Amino acid sequence: MTQTLRHLVSIDDLSVEEIRALFAAADRFAADPRGHADLCPGMISASLFYEPSTRTRLSFESAMLRLGGGVITAAEMKQSSASKGESLADTVRVVGGAYSDVIVLRHPSEGAARLAAQYSPVPVINAGDGAHEHPTQTLCDLYNLHVERGRIEGLDVVLAGDLKYSRTVHSFAYALARFGANIVCVPQAGFEMPEYVLCRLREEFGVEPIRADARRLGNLASDSDAVYLTPQKPHQLSLFTDARGWEVEHVDALYMTRPQTERHGGAELSEASYLRLEKRSMAVESLRDAVVMHPLPRRDEIDSEIDSDPRSIYFKQAARGVPIRMAILGLLLGRSDLGVEPPAPRPEGVAVRVGDNPCPNPACISRTETRHVTPAFTLAGRVPLRAHCAYCSRELTFEWVGCSSTGHYHAPGAGDLRRVRPDHLVFFTDRGAAEACGFKPAARSRDGISAGSGPA
Amino acid sequence: MTQTLRHLVSIDDLSVEEIRALFAAADRFAADPRGHADLCPGMISASLFYEPSTRTRLSFESAMLRLGGGVITAAEMKQSSASKGESLADTVRVVGGAYSDVIVLRHPSEGAARLAAQYSPVPVINAGDGAHEHPTQTLCDLYNLHVERGRIEGLDVVLAGDLKYSRTVHSFAYALARFGANIVCVPQAGFEMPEYVLCRLREEFGVEPIRADARRLGNLASDSDAVYLTPQKPHQLSLFTDARGWEVEHVDALYMTRPQTERHGGAELSEASYLRLEKRSMAVESLRDAVVMHPLPRRDEIDSEIDSDPRSIYFKQAARGVPIRMAILGLLLGRSDLGVEPPAPRPEGVAVRVGDNPCPNPACISRTETRHVTPAFTLAGRVPLRAHCAYCSRELTFEWVGCSSTGHYHAPGAGDLRRVRPDHLVFFTDRGAAEACGFKPAARSRDGISAGSGPA
Amino acid sequence: MTQTLRHLVSIDDLSVEEIRALFAAADRFAADPRGHADLCPGMISASLFYEPSTRTRLSFESAMLRLGGGVITAAEMKQSSASKGESLADTVRVVGGAYSDVIVLRHPSEGAARLAAQYSPVPVINAGDGAHEHPTQTLCDLYNLHVERGRIEGLDVVLAGDLKYSRTVHSFAYALARFGANIVCVPQAGFEMPEYVLCRLREEFGVEPIRADARRLGNLASDSDAVYLTPQKPHQLSLFTDARGWEVEHVDALYMTRPQTERHGGAELSEASYLRLEKRSMAVESLRDAVVMHPLPRRDEIDSEIDSDPRSIYFKQAARGVPIRMAILGLLLGRSDLGVEPPAPRPEGVAVRVGDNPCPNPACISRTETRHVTPAFTLAGRVPLRAHCAYCSRELTFEWVGCSSTGHYHAPGAGDLRRVRPDHLVFFTDRGAAEACGFKPAARSRDGISAGSGPA
Repeated sequence: MTQTLRHLVSIDDLSVEEIRALFAAADRFAADPRGHADLCPGMISASLFYEPSTRTRLSFESAMLRLGGGVITAAEMKQSSASKGESLADTVRVVGGAYSDVIVLRHPSEGAARLAAQYSPVPVINAGDGAHEHPTQTLCDLYNLHVERGRIEGLDVVLAGDLKYSRTVHSFAYALARFGANIVCVPQAGFEMPEYVLCRLREEFGVEPIRADARRLGNLASDSDAVYLTPQKPHQLSLFTDARGWEVEHVDALYMTRPQTERHGGAELSEASYLRLEKRSMAVESLRDAVVMHPLPRRDEIDSEIDSDPRSIYFKQAARGVPIRMAILGLLLGRSDLGVEPPAPRPEGVAVRVGDNPCPNPACISRTETRHVTPAFTLAGRVPLRAHCAYCSRELTFEWVGCSSTGHYHAPGAGDLRRVRPDHLVFFTDRGAAEACGFKPAARSRDGISAGSGPA
Repeated sequence: MTQTLRHLVSIDDLSVEEIRALFAAADRFAADPRGHADLCPGMISASLFYEPSTRTRLSFESAMLRLGGGVITAAEMKQSSASKGESLADTVRVVGGAYSDVIVLRHPSEGAARLAAQYSPVPVINAGDGAHEHPTQTLCDLYNLHVERGRIEGLDVVLAGDLKYSRTVHSFAYALARFGANIVCVPQAGFEMPEYVLCRLREEFGVEPIRADARRLGNLASDSDAVYLTPQKPHQLSLFTDARGWEVEHVDALYMTRPQTERHGGAELSEASYLRLEKRSMAVESLRDAVVMHPLPRRDEIDSEIDSDPRSIYFKQAARGVPIRMAILGLLLGRSDLGVEPPAPRPEGVAVRVGDNPCPNPACISRTETRHVTPAFTLAGRVPLRAHCAYCSRELTFEWVGCSSTGHYHAPGAGDLRRVRPDHLVFFTDRGAAEACGFKPAARSRDGISAGSGPA
Repeated sequence: MTQTLRHLVSIDDLSVEEIRALFAAADRFAADPRGHADLCPGMISASLFYEPSTRTRLSFESAMLRLGGGVITAAEMKQSSASKGESLADTVRVVGGAYSDVIVLRHPSEGAARLAAQYSPVPVINAGDGAHEHPTQTLCDLYNLHVERGRIEGLDVVLAGDLKYSRTVHSFAYALARFGANIVCVPQAGFEMPEYVLCRLREEFGVEPIRADARRLGNLASDSDAVYLTPQKPHQLSLFTDARGWEVEHVDALYMTRPQTERHGGAELSEASYLRLEKRSMAVESLRDAVVMHPLPRRDEIDSEIDSDPRSIYFKQAARGVPIRMAILGLLLGRSDLGVEPPAPRPEGVAVRVGDNPCPNPACISRTETRHVTPAFTLAGRVPLRAHCAYCSRELTFEWVGCSSTGHYHAPGAGDLRRVRPDHLVFFTDRGAAEACGFKPAARSRDGISAGSGPA
């Protein structure tokens, strides 16, 4: 592993400037798809797919071939070595050893790509890790706005449908906020954008949700409580909003999502009642210029009668996945110098060496991979203490926090925790767990319990 | 889609002159298989296989690699995107978008390739659509005759075995007739060539079946009622036939087929009783020069003891699938100009916009694909009215025909139907269906019922 | 098939000199993995995998791509043509026809690669045939010793773990003996090296097992009865051994194997009790210089805490599979002239044309492949008569031996058998089988029964 080895685990692994430079590179690839076979000759990409995803896999493989490289493919990893009990960490060390120059990984466990990147001797590209991240999909979506609108900042983008379970839409929302676009949430009733997404939008990007008046969106929004998410300060908006909220007047892009029925865990939603984009939905004035996007595959949420509408760009959107993936491959393989700065390195996760794995996510790779994973976290706040799993990004839930140096445990709000070294922190779900690990309660005067910041 | 975009859905998409030119191209490829890698560099073929067919897939992929192109493969399509409910129409629009320059499609539904060709932005090659067509197999079979015999016209070709269920043998029979070859049918008892195949041979190619005396074929034909199919007029043959029928004297090629047990739907045929080509079968004088062909895989219908017989060309036959597929790929990718005229464009199917899907075939793509398929038909005759499904080519079965303009329905034999515009035709299985759609019976004097041409 | 067509079915298909030359070629490939794409342009390798083995397949495919060739892949052969009943012999004749220039075959039946080589028009590489052989794995293991130690002769190599069921370890043991290395067997208790392996080591390579004193191996060997296998004559060793056996003082390489639980057929061995290589195991003086090898995948038999130990080379070992496979492909495709002599041709198997298949191995291809396999054997000894299956190498078990020329049957120890032509030999499990085939007992005075060499 050299210092300059780069992975694409999360879209945050790329700076905004890099993303813009990738768009410029993708423009060149798209203009002449067969004219760049001299970029990666002799290089090999390995597709390691632990769950099938033909579309994503073929898009990457096409991109690598267009760059003049070769491809080796394991489209059904579950049924092979994995069944002999091999860990993901071992697999990427072997496949990244001499077999390939880059690994494209799809895995059902959240955080799998982060783990793979820790061990792989070659760049790892996250092609989807469970419901966590799928950065090249997000890049592709942004790239489409760039191509269709020439910019992303200041655009008004409607996100419609199942906003609760769609990984794609959450990642896209973060990315839109990062690029300064405004978001209109038009959820299927009962499938609103989750609080933790709104929270992150607020904390990271200063995005404030305000009530939206979506009557001008016509029948598309008739059933929804629309929300406008904007990085502009509410006081700046006061001129344009009244009691009914921000009025949606002109939409730049409408992003539809399918119902994520496989994650609903039951008949929560009948497909018949799902939002459906039809010819008449597209006839309203506010959508006159809106491009219609969809990450595909679609089912019935977009009627085929609007496939021929020039505003429907979802098939172009998928096609543009190839040049943007060519740009990513060229960057990670060291064959394109974008000429801009990479982002500051992501803070390393802190290994959890004492106590149980504090990640509450059963789909996290730190829980599903039984070998070679040391749970780890990143700090999100000091008082009260907040932390995220370093693999799946889920916020840790705990009632008590120990210090492995003093052997004391504290309520998360205790001021004393401010002084504990991160690698000394231990997370406990209850007092019993703390005591079982040999920890003692901190003195009342020091641990802040008297301040009422912890459970009684 | 450009005007010049060409597909290979059916062998009828190629003119006889083109096929001859493809043979010449294949000859050049076969002479120097590795000398043509400069033909399609930078181009990508996508194998979309909705059912496994390793032989066909590898043959196409080898052909593309030999042309210098790249290949992306979905060998098990059913288990991936399709399981998320994606339609074939959407899949080919995505994969043909920027992923690939040509799509090789295998699908269990009849007519699937026709549907794919309607939507794909790149050429579609039908690599088998259920029991319907497999044009490159037919081309390969013809090409083998061309190589082995130097011509096809006037050859006497024996088709032996399961002539009832073998798609391969039906397509080959049409192609032989088109090229002016004579066919000797030597069916397994009970597995005779179906009437609809004989009917099409007669209607399209003027081929008349006459009884054949196959005693000179020895034990191969001992159990069969052989039939001779020839484009020559029976009166021209009268000099050579007597009460026992046309005497089979000299065979140019013997085409064996395996029992299509997967389509027999039960223990209709024990394998032990199936025709079996053995050393002694090949000893008869009439087969002295006959090449032995088989589309493979074989089971026991050709004894391995004749594998080393120089007349056994079935392995060469399979090998020649590569150069002929190279020729097809070169043509459809626009890299070979054959210098001859393509056939007249196939008549477009007429969309069925009123009433139920008139196609009676449960395996037709118009029935199995639930999205984006509008049933369609092509007219085969006016009085009585006859029509075929535009996807699977199956003849429509109906008792009444409506006119969506007048709102009347007629018996198929009604002379009035002659004047109905094709896009106004509606097909009904019974009066009830017609009435349910709001159609009324035509007046007796005009609809020909009084002439007794419809059901009472 | 030309006279010069070569296959790699067994490592014995290569001479020691060739193997050394392959190492030299692999060194060149490893030094510049992307610098050899001009070696096999236009050539195609076909991966035919009748059971999944992602690691092996990707390694071969990477090697072929690095040589500038193309790859066609059937990763799940069982589910495709094979289900239509096609024989392996037919499949390789088709795929080796024009589809590919070399076939890489993985098959669950022992001897499958030998059968494939008989029929294939192009070179066949055995990528594992059941529990039988996997020659490129063995070559890779030897190559690692060559790279790490500069030689193989005279090295002391510890084989540890499940020595009973591991094909890899048996093949490696033969190869070490062939190259003059010494072997220290440190088996998991109950999983000792089988007698037939020791027997072959003695017969072919003059290797004598002597008791070993493995106390200096520390906790690794605490539970085992270690055995030292050396091609040196015991009397030469007498200076260094005493009642406790040869003392293991300095180990050059330690080869760990995983428990082959899939072959144990039950809960014979709990994983918890299996040998486990840990930090403290590696701290003993005797292992100071030992490289740690493992064919991978591993489970828990090597603790991940020693992954970062510079002596742990198992990931490098896997990576070196690519250059050594490049060397093999280059040789078999006729693109590398090693400049040394190939081994004397392997004796042809003698076809068994009378009586039952004498191979006792139910996993042998001669039993699992129902078409196109004639059982065959090679003679291993004349008095008593001993023979091996020509496919799976298993020793034939029989009670009586017939001569198809005289119609007599004899006890295996009968001197008369010395004069019987090999192709006249017929093997019987009992008298009944012999009599059922019409054979008669040989006269007492001539068949040696009176000498007590056969069953009563």
